Order: sequence, then structure tokens, then C-alpha cells
Amino acid sequence: MTQLRIGMIGYKFMGKAHSNAYRSLPMFFPKALQPQMSVICGRNAEALANAANQLGWSESVTDWKELIARDDIDLIDINAPSNAHKEIALAAVKAGKHIFCEKPLALTLADSREMLQAAEDAGVAHMVGFNYRFSPAVRLAKKLVESGRLGKIYHFRAWFLQDWILDPEFPLVWRLQKEVAGSGSHGDLGAHLIDLAHFLVGDMKEVIGMSETFIKERPLAAEMTGLSAKGSKDGPRGEVTVDDATLFLARFATGAMGSFEATRFAAGHRSTNSFEINGSLGSVKFDFERMNELEVYLTSDEEDVQGFRRVLATDPVHEYAEAWWPPGHTIGFEHTFIHEMLELSTAIAEGRQPEPNFHDGVKCQAVLEAVERSVDERRWVSLAEM
Amino acid sequence: MTQLRIGMIGYKFMGKAHSNAYRSLPMFFPKALQPQMSVICGRNAEALANAANQLGWSESVTDWKELIARDDIDLIDINAPSNAHKEIALAAVKAGKHIFCEKPLALTLADSREMLQAAEDAGVAHMVGFNYRFSPAVRLAKKLVESGRLGKIYHFRAWFLQDWILDPEFPLVWRLQKEVAGSGSHGDLGAHLIDLAHFLVGDMKEVIGMSETFIKERPLAAEMTGLSAKGSKDGPRGEVTVDDATLFLARFATGAMGSFEATRFAAGHRSTNSFEINGSLGSVKFDFERMNELEVYLTSDEEDVQGFRRVLATDPVHEYAEAWWPPGHTIGFEHTFIHEMLELSTAIAEGRQPEPNFHDGVKCQAVLEAVERSVDERRWVSLAEM
Amino acid sequence: MTQLRIGMIGYKFMGKAHSNAYRSLPMFFPKALQPQMSVICGRNAEALANAANQLGWSESVTDWKELIARDDIDLIDINAPSNAHKEIALAAVKAGKHIFCEKPLALTLADSREMLQAAEDAGVAHMVGFNYRFSPAVRLAKKLVESGRLGKIYHFRAWFLQDWILDPEFPLVWRLQKEVAGSGSHGDLGAHLIDLAHFLVGDMKEVIGMSETFIKERPLAAEMTGLSAKGSKDGPRGEVTVDDATLFLARFATGAMGSFEATRFAAGHRSTNSFEINGSLGSVKFDFERMNELEVYLTSDEEDVQGFRRVLATDPVHEYAEAWWPPGHTIGFEHTFIHEMLELSTAIAEGRQPEPNFHDGVKCQAVLEAVERSVDERRWVSLAEM
Amino acid sequence: MTQLRIGMIGYKFMGKAHSNAYRSLPMFFPKALQPQMSVICGRNAEALANAANQLGWSESVTDWKELIARDDIDLIDINAPSNAHKEIALAAVKAGKHIFCEKPLALTLADSREMLQAAEDAGVAHMVGFNYRFSPAVRLAKKLVESGRLGKIYHFRAWFLQDWILDPEFPLVWRLQKEVAGSGSHGDLGAHLIDLAHFLVGDMKEVIGMSETFIKERPLAAEMTGLSAKGSKDGPRGEVTVDDATLFLARFATGAMGSFEATRFAAGHRSTNSFEINGSLGSVKFDFERMNELEVYLTSDEEDVQGFRRVLATDPVHEYAEAWWPPGHTIGFEHTFIHEMLELSTAIAEGRQPEPNFHDGVKCQAVLEAVERSVDERRWVSLAEM
Repeated sequence: MTQLRIGMIGYKFMGKAHSNAYRSLPMFFPKALQPQMSVICGRNAEALANAANQLGWSESVTDWKELIARDDIDLIDINAPSNAHKEIALAAVKAGKHIFCEKPLALTLADSREMLQAAEDAGVAHMVGFNYRFSPAVRLAKKLVESGRLGKIYHFRAWFLQDWILDPEFPLVWRLQKEVAGSGSHGDLGAHLIDLAHFLVGDMKEVIGMSETFIKERPLAAEMTGLSAKGSKDGPRGEVTVDDATLFLARFATGAMGSFEATRFAAGHRSTNSFEINGSLGSVKFDFERMNELEVYLTSDEEDVQGFRRVLATDPVHEYAEAWWPPGHTIGFEHTFIHEMLELSTAIAEGRQPEPNFHDGVKCQAVLEAVERSVDERRWVSLAEM
Repeated sequence: MTQLRIGMIGYKFMGKAHSNAYRSLPMFFPKALQPQMSVICGRNAEALANAANQLGWSESVTDWKELIARDDIDLIDINAPSNAHKEIALAAVKAGKHIFCEKPLALTLADSREMLQAAEDAGVAHMVGFNYRFSPAVRLAKKLVESGRLGKIYHFRAWFLQDWILDPEFPLVWRLQKEVAGSGSHGDLGAHLIDLAHFLVGDMKEVIGMSETFIKERPLAAEMTGLSAKGSKDGPRGEVTVDDATLFLARFATGAMGSFEATRFAAGHRSTNSFEINGSLGSVKFDFERMNELEVYLTSDEEDVQGFRRVLATDPVHEYAEAWWPPGHTIGFEHTFIHEMLELSTAIAEGRQPEPNFHDGVKCQAVLEAVERSVDERRWVSLAEM
Repeated sequence: MTQLRIGMIGYKFMGKAHSNAYRSLPMFFPKALQPQMSVICGRNAEALANAANQLGWSESVTDWKELIARDDIDLIDINAPSNAHKEIALAAVKAGKHIFCEKPLALTLADSREMLQAAEDAGVAHMVGFNYRFSPAVRLAKKLVESGRLGKIYHFRAWFLQDWILDPEFPLVWRLQKEVAGSGSHGDLGAHLIDLAHFLVGDMKEVIGMSETFIKERPLAAEMTGLSAKGSKDGPRGEVTVDDATLFLARFATGAMGSFEATRFAAGHRSTNSFEINGSLGSVKFDFERMNELEVYLTSDEEDVQGFRRVLATDPVHEYAEAWWPPGHTIGFEHTFIHEMLELSTAIAEGRQPEPNFHDGVKCQAVLEAVERSVDERRWVSLAEM
Repeated sequence: MTQLRIGMIGYKFMGKAHSNAYRSLPMFFPKALQPQMSVICGRNAEALANAANQLGWSESVTDWKELIARDDIDLIDINAPSNAHKEIALAAVKAGKHIFCEKPLALTLADSREMLQAAEDAGVAHMVGFNYRFSPAVRLAKKLVESGRLGKIYHFRAWFLQDWILDPEFPLVWRLQKEVAGSGSHGDLGAHLIDLAHFLVGDMKEVIGMSETFIKERPLAAEMTGLSAKGSKDGPRGEVTVDDATLFLARFATGAMGSFEATRFAAGHRSTNSFEINGSLGSVKFDFERMNELEVYLTSDEEDVQGFRRVLATDPVHEYAEAWWPPGHTIGFEHTFIHEMLELSTAIAEGRQPEPNFHDGVKCQAVLEAVERSVDERRWVSLAEM
């Protein structure tokens, strides 16, 4: 295999992030199998043409079925709204395409399992978009955990705090509608925390959660881009059908204790995606707003200089760092996608499944739904029953 | 009333902190009713004599009943181990003494209610030792909440993280024995978080928690002071009968969501006692390791300079600050007790109940037990059923 | 003018950063005049061919004179070593090319003035590569100063601290050789601080400095890339002919006081490029290792919540931010170059000089040399005498 | 010697800090020789009586000569305004009293040398009040430097930033009058930095500085306490005769480079007293606003977890910490004085000179004056010529 011809469905926030990632691989990771930005797909022809031009795609089509039917495409990248994932993915793998799907895989656990099964049956490569795994500082945390340098893990606590819908007049965008988004902060933000927990600590055994929708009605949205949107204060309103905030406790298979919080009502937090791990030999702390840094504590430090150290994960020893700039020169949000697409193309070149893949997407979905069930039924829910 | 003659029972970690507080009032709060450090009480005569001398008490007695029987004592300060609180407190209020009792009030909710009732019946002043309320930065948080400057409160999250028993060879001190301490991190650390939640956000409606004892056996303790102790690695071992860590979720009466975590297994955290409050108009963050600071975010800030500001609560406008040093000159842990005893003596001088008092102690105990019940029965527990 | 055809000389650290910037404009700033990555130039044909391919240039040539002679090139980008800047620049402007030149403009003030004069005489656009001006947080600082929100400026202090040559066995790379680099930390790091001072506070009146070369001999370098290199411990050594660290004090024309420090011997500082400004109405602090943040203090804050606030310059109101990701999603080092090249192409499209341009390069060089003179002659040196 | 009877002259900001320190030794350092708070001295009889009562002194006198003449006093503590230090100190040592003198020792180097000579001739113990040496975190820095764990020291940079006179209407208190205070920020704040430099890095060889008085006239002060004061906006004004800010560069005897800044015009800095040391094997950073912390970087850390660690100097291994509270429980500004007075009484008990003593006071004064001379004469001034 000497090229990886991409057909991408979706061209907004994630479409831009993915395009930039594909486009950046040749310059920063020249030895990788290089993606070809072949065809971009979306429903609005005019907007799509602009996007194709701006984002650097060779062709554009408005019908995703047409895209999938082409035989000059190797991989389908799905970053359309969540409720469209399943149908497209099933069709794509049936057509023998490799597949990259943004998180969440689907609106339900059953759907995501169906997608996994179909992809496995088709023998294609499948990947799911948990991009935060690809921060060099998170890789360092993983390395410290896996090598045993943090010892036995006792605690994992994580919170993803945003404030973009704090204003009650912020409109009812698709991310606030259950039938499109599946869930609110839980599936959007909490899903990332859950995947990081799986990546760093392992499987969960049981969970119990609580959810709240603080603002129950909002103005209908006129237009939106990225996470911003405009509504009219005096116009019609609609019901918010997803959670504004979801918290849950978890017990991991290893006995570690977990605490999770996802909210869009944390004033002052634009996007605080943070976790801490405490083990018998050390701890690490991470905050995505300072994504180049990992705070590390090791009990083996000399006793008079023990303390959390601020490690800037930009040294050559840190994963991905040498491809970028000299030590101390930081990278940003978009780089997580570049590293993600590096894993995608590398895994395909090597004939193995990328990580994280649909197995991870299903596992995440199982926890999401277990938490939802625990909220509905007001009880601990075992992952075994999902 | 022109003096407040104190009889104090206990002379270790808290006894030292209280003594220093009583002793400091004349110098820093000269207008307050001044405590007289009359009699100190403990069981070991020799150690007690040393303590009396070092801590500055006029007399010492080894029998607390004798102390309570004296008519030249106005207030009994109880900082003996938790299992002794109830008996002493009941006797003291029966003798008409005002009373200060360290937290937790008692080992059970029933006991603490009995203590409250007795104190109320006796018409004495009663106070409980939730000292963290008395950090100037916490007072500032309270002021911002109460004045409405943070708006409607959506979230309260708090964690008290320590690591002093991380080493499995750390001995089985009294704080790890249920019959003496009542509970572990939950009652020791979590109790403070619960009181702060009550102080800052109000009553809780229901809770659900999880607990863990990571290290189930430890060497018997040879000796101990403060939080440190020495045991013998090869000597006999005993069972740890309290929790190493307890987490819980809570729903407040106002609809706010709460998340709490208390652990002694967070490597690198000597004593991180931290909370954050998110409201519709702003947020605050506090960490006792930087107790002079409050981080404050206000949505009303101009849109290009919005961010958490680090407020050093040492300006004259901040409560207690003018009694101390010029702006920027910080205070420490012990000062919370000085302010606490200022409230105690001031309330008595003014003929009102101090705050926090046994009502607050009972409320805290109710949450502690509700959480324990939720752990045992694996279900949400309403405070109404306690 | 509908296109801007670039010929770039140099293809290493800065060549990569510039290439990435040119390449990124269409995606993130689609309305700008778009650079065409036409021809790349370097001396080593094989390495150059690889670079052309990796970095995305259409053609490559090994003779810069040939490049300049072409009539299908509109702008010459010079990022060759410093000692080559002048000859190339003079030839380029003589050929009527617009010009972008990395800092420092030249090895001497006289040379840089000659370059400015030539560029002005030729009527071409000229720009110099002070990329740190293009951090959104630095733009915010500029906005606060210029709008008067910080009041009268009293203090500017700045430090650029690195540690990449702390090891005495780090080899003698070109950056440590005066005949190639002009100076050491002073011209490499201090030059950026000086430009930021000019940008944010204005002209200096007089300076006095001190310099040191802590490690006077190093192994000759075998090979190098970016800021890293390998030498042989037992091989031949050469003299370090530039400063390891240079500090200076400055008086600004406005009466503000300045303090500057540039060093490559600050252990633990990979690349701390930091400044603080104190004015009569407020202060700002910046650290490039956390480049998305600006700490802002305003005396107009209510008196009980005064403190430095951590502003994340990722909101739509912040310059450049809307082209990137949602609030709280950070950018990195390379983005300063993208914004820099946006200014370059925009200025050319608008028929004005870009900022910073050769005037700024000359002003910076004047301060650099004034400081050097002050070091040599051990006296205050007025900028008027330069 | 079994007691140390103190006569203290001055009873305001420093008088309170010293009184608290003397009073605290028995409780926290019970094994030390204990000071007796015998006689306090001041000019205003009524204020003095109040102070004696509040601060806990047995007697008070309004004539310092009378105090010195008493034979039941062992040590004179001078914290009167700076212009009174010399006369009192000379009389005290002549009377055979041990002496503690607040910094600065005197208004001139000549005076301070005379004081040192007199104290040495009299054979008494002498100490000068550089209290910041006594922060546990500063002691840790000292330990790291002295033990060689930071290697050869290349850089010391220090800044003491305040903003208490930023308001041009803040009145003309004694600290702004040269005839009383000697100098402004230089002697008040810079003196502390200089002493820390001597303590941590050693002697300086030469200096060059710059000074500024930004606000040249202020309202006459009506009253003042601590660092705060009130003046009348429309009342008479007087000239500010001291510096608002002084910066200087220094070369240490070891070849290390130093940078110093003291200002009262740094908006947002209530009292930022901060330094950083960079050595060949590591670095430390300190900020008195977070005085319990020392940031430490060691090149010997494993290469993937290198970074500044935040050490909380509250562990038993840290100097003074065991006398206080458990790890993680912080101390404040006043504790530096308690440790200072511990050194004072311990040194006297052991028959040795305390540290820092008048030698250190003279050394500091020499640098202060060398800097002043360098400002006046606009040239580098060698310490050898002082």
C-alpha cells in the first residue's frame, strides 16, 4: 500500500481539524504512509465547495452514498453529526472501506456494537476519534502508568468543564438536542474522560451517576459554527433534551476509585479537560488548557525535594515531540489530531488495528449508557449487565 | 462578663493549635473578650505537666470530671480523641459550661444530636471546630456567594487529599481505628468538606458514596505525635477498621450538584483541601495549601480580559486581614484557629451562639452517616431519612 | 496582485516554520492573499531536494543568485544563517523583490541600516521575523497598553531563559560562533525581548549591560538540526566566541525603566520567554511556555477581588483566535509564524509596509549594539549615539 | 545564662512582629533560651502603654536612654525608624547589651561600620533583621546551594515588587523621606534581596544601578500604621526624597551574574519578594507570597520527567517545620521572625554570634551605597572601593 485515499464526510469543526491533520503529516511525519485528501462530502453544495477549496480537498460530493460507492477511496472519515454515524459506517465497511469515526461512535450502545461487529466482519481498519490520547503529555502519563512508575493505581479523577452555554439565551444548537447528539455534556465531554480512564487505568466494573439540565428551554438556533451560535432572544424556544452536567463515581476492575464530572456550566472554564491519577508510587495531573505540561510526583524523590514537578512534554524523549519544535516550544489542540491521523495511517500501513478503535468506542459507549441507566434507575450499574 | 476562663481537655495536635489561638487573641484582637488559659486536662500526668508549661496553662488536672466540677471555669474545650467527646460534653453542659468541641462532634449522628439537645437545654454556648471556615479566603468566597455575585450556584466540588498513610508500613494509629475515630478519611477530612459545603452552598438533599480501605492491615503503632507515628515492620499487625478513601455525590436543596472526595492515598498531596464553586455569574476556587489565595472568576469582566484572578486575601477589605500584616504578607494554618476562637469569645460576649455550632456539627454528622448508609446499602440516601 | 510567489532561502528550523506558515494560510485565513510556495534554495542539493519535498515547495535551486534573478518570484524569504542576510537582502531588493528576513537583520547595525536604506530605495515591502509579536496573548497586551488601560507605564522587565547549552560538552554549533551568529544569547534571545519592548513600550533612551561566556571552549560540532547537535567529547575543541548570557538595564524615552536578561544557562528553562509590564492602572505578565495565557491586573477591579487574572487568549474577541478553534482550545509556537506571514501577505496586498519591518530590525540592532558597547566600555550608552 | 531579658525600642509594624516572635518561642521551641519581654520603649506614653499591654510587655519607658541604663536588661531590640538606629545601638553596646537591630543598620555605610566596630569592641552579640532568611523554603534553597546540589551558580535574579504607593495621592509617610528612611524601595526592599544574595550566592564584586522617583510630590501624611496611611488630597504636599524604584546588575565574586529590582510601583504585587538561582546542576525559585513553597529543578532527574517541582517546605525534613504543624499545613510571614528570634536566643545561649549579624548588615549597606554611587556617577562601582 503506497497511498491512503480519504473520503471525508463532514466539514465543520472536526472536518477542519481532520483536514489540517491529513495535510500536516507529510511535513512533520514524512516517513508515514501519507493520506490523500481525495473527496469531501456534505449536504450543502455551496458551503461544501467552499470547504473543499479552503481545506484542500481534490473533489467534493453531496451524496455520501456516492462517495462510498467509489473504488478510488480507501478510507471513510465520518465527522458528521452523531446521529448519522451508524448508517454511514455500516455502508462504508460493507463497501470494504477502512473507517475513521468521530466519537461518540453512535447514539446507543447497541448501535455501536453493531458497527464494531460489521467492521470486524469486513476485516477493515477502524478507528474512533478520542484525540486527547494523542497529547504528548498524556502519552507520558500512559508511559509512567504502564511502566509501573506510579505503582498500583488508587485514584483516577477527571473533569471536563466548559462554560459555553452558561448564558440561558445561548440557542438550542444540535449539541443540545438528544435526537441528534445522543447526550449532552455526558457524551460530548464525559466520553473523552471515560476513554482516558480506559486508556490510563483500564476497565470499569460499576458506576453510579447523576445528571442535570439546568436550563430547560432555549431560543431556537439561527446559525452556528464550531461551538458558537446565534439565537434570537424574542424568537421561538425549544426544549433542551440533553444533560447540562453529568457526574459519576466508578469502581475500576483493579479496585481503583474513579470520579468523573462533565459540565457546560462551569463559569470561567473555557475547556478544562483535566485528570489526576494517584498511585502507590506517584501521581500525575493533566489539564488540557496547559496541554504541553504534565505534573508528576514520584515518592522516590529525595525526601527534602518532594513535590509535583511541571514537566513540559516537549523534549526529544517525549512522544511526537521531535517531529515538532525545539524543547520549550509548545504545540496546541490541533496537534492531537495530527498524531491521531499518524496512528491511523501507520496502523493501516502496518496491517494492524489503530488505537483507539471501535472496541474502545464500544467500551466508552457502554460506560456512557451504564451511567445513564444508573441515573434513571438511581442505583449502581455494573458494566457486566450492559 | 469580663473574662472567659477556659478548661481544655486534650493537649496534642489540636490542643497546641487551640492554646496558640487563645494566647494570640490579646495581641491581635485586643478588643475581644479575652480567654484565660486556666486549666489543661489530660491523662498522662508527666506529659500533661510538660504541655501545661509549654502551652501556657496556669494549672493542670488529670481527671476531666474534676475539671468540670470546678466553678472557676466558664468554658470546656474538648479536643480529646473523638470517642471521648460525647461523655465529656454531656457532663460539661450539665455543669453549665459553655463548650467548644472539636469535630467530629461524636461517633454517631444519634450521639451528636443528644449533645446538641443537651447543650440547648442547658442554655450554654456551643461551638464545633470546623476551622477552615475561618480562612480569610474562604470568608471571601462566602461573601461572594451570599451577596449574589456568583449568581445561582450550579456546582460545588471539593476534595481533601493527603498522603500520610500511603506507605503500607505506616502504623495503625488511633485515626485508623473505628472505635476511637469513628471513621477514617471520611470523618476526618470529608467532614471539613461537608461543613464548607453547608457554609457556602447550603443543605444537601441526598447523597451516594463509595468507600475503600486500600491497606487492610498495618503494624501496631508504638508512639505517635500529630499526624506522624512510628511502627515496627516486623511487629504485630492489626486491622484497619476505617476507610482510606470515601467519595460521594450530592444533590443540594437548591438543585446544585456536589462532588466530594476524601483520601489519604493521594501521593504528593500533603494536605490539599480544595473546593470550587460554579455559579451563573462566576466561580471561585480554593486550595488550603495556598490558603491566602482565592481564585475568582466573574462573568461581568470585560470580554477581552476574562479569567480566573488570583486574589490574595490579605488586603484590609478582607475579613481578619487588618489584624495581621500589610497586604501581601501571608498567614498560615494556625490562624484559622485564632479566628475561630475569636468567634467563640465574641459570640459569648454578645450572648449569641457561635458559628459553626452543634447544629452544624449535627448537620455534618447527618451527611457523614447518610454517606455511610449509601455505601452500605448501595443506594441514594435522602437526608430526610436520617 | 493575486498571488505572492515566494522564494525561500534556508530550510532548517526557521525554514520549516515558515513553510508551515505559508502552507497554513489558505486553510485558516482563506481571505488573505495566498503565498505560493514556489522555490526553495539551499546549498546541499540532496538535503534541499528532501526539504523541498517534505516542506511542499514546487522547485528548488542551490544558487540563491539564480533564485533572485528569476522573474517569477515576488518575495524572497531569508532564513539562512545570520551572516548571509545582508548580501542576499541587498541583491533581492535590488532585483525589486519584496523581502522577509529572519532576525537579526544583520551582524552589525551599519549593515542593517544599509539593508533598510536599500529596501526603502527599492520601494519594496520588507519585514523582519520577530514572530513573538504574533502571539494572541501578546496582541492583547499591546491592546491594553495602547488603549491606555494599563495607564502610564513604569516598568518593563523581560527574560528569555534557555538551558540547551548548559552541558559543557554540548558542541560548538554555529549559534556559538560570532562570525556566523553575530552574538549569542544576546542577539538570539535578547533581540526578541528588545523587539517586544519596542512593540509594547516604545523606544529606549539609554542602556547598560553585562555579558558572560561561562563555558569558553566546546567540542567541535559533528552535525546539528534545530537547536540540537552532537559533538565528540574527546575530539577537537574550539573557542566559544559569543555570549552565554547578557543582561542589561534600560531607560525608555517615556521614563519607564527596563530590565532584560537573556541566557542559555538557566537550568530547567527550556524556553522561558517572559515579560511583565507595570503601569499606573494595571499590569500584564506573559510567558511563552504558556503562550495562550496573559496574566492581567487592573486597579479598577473591585477592592475585594483584586488580583492577576489568567486570561486565555482564545476567545473570539482575541486577535486571530476566531480563525482557530473554540475558546479554551490552545495553539502553539508555530502559529506565531502563521500570523506573521498573514501580516506579510496582507500588508503587501494592501500596499503598505508590514510590521515589524526593517525599521524595527534596525532599531533592535541599535539596542543590541548599544548594549555591546556598554559592556565593552563599561558605561551607559545612549541610543542617540548609535 | 538562663534568661534573656529584652528591652525593645519601637512598637509598630516591626515591634508587633518581634513581640509575637518572643512570645511564641516557649510554645513552639521550648528547648530554646527563652526571651523575657521585660521593657518596651517608645516616645508617645499613651500609645506605648496600649502597646505594652497588647503586645505583652511587663514594663514600658518613654526614654530609651533610661532603658539602656537599666541593669536588668540583657538585649536591646531596635525597631525604631532607621535614622535612630545608630545612636541607640552605640549607646546600647557601650552599656554591654546584646543587640538586635532592624534593617537597614543605619543610614550610611560609615555609620553601620561604626556600629559594627562598637559592637565588636564591646564583645556583645549583634544581629540584624533580615527575616526572610528564616523562611523554611529559603533554608532549603540554602541547603541545596551549599551542598552543591545546584552545582556552580551562574545566575541570581531577584525582585521585590510592591504597589502600596502606586496611588499618587498616597501620603508622604516616613518611608518616603530620605532623612528618616535613608532610601526608598532600595533600602527597604532591595536590602532584603541583597542579603538573600549574600546568604545564597556570596559576595558581590561590582554593581551598576538605576533609580527613579516616579511621583515627586505627595500629600503630607496625617497618620499611619504599618504600611498604610491617610493623607488629605487638598492639603499641603511635600517632596518625595527617596527612590520609588531601583534596579541594578551585579557581578558576584564567583563570576555569577546578578539582577535586582525593587519597586513600589508594580500594580498587582502586594509584596512579591522573589528570587531565582540557576546553577550548572539545577535551579530554585522562590516567591514570598507563596513562602511555603520552593520550586526546584535538578538536571539529575530522569530525562522524561524533568521539570520544576513545587516543594512544600512543611515536611519534617525541612528546617523549623517539625516545630509547627503536620506536612501541608502552612505557616506565614510572622514565622520568619519567630525563627529569627530563635537564632538570636540560641546564638546567645551558645556564646556565638547570631547570623545574620552586623557584618551582614554592613555588607548589605556597602552594596546599597555602591548602587547609589553607581546611580549618581553613572558607572560600575566596585565593592572594593566602598
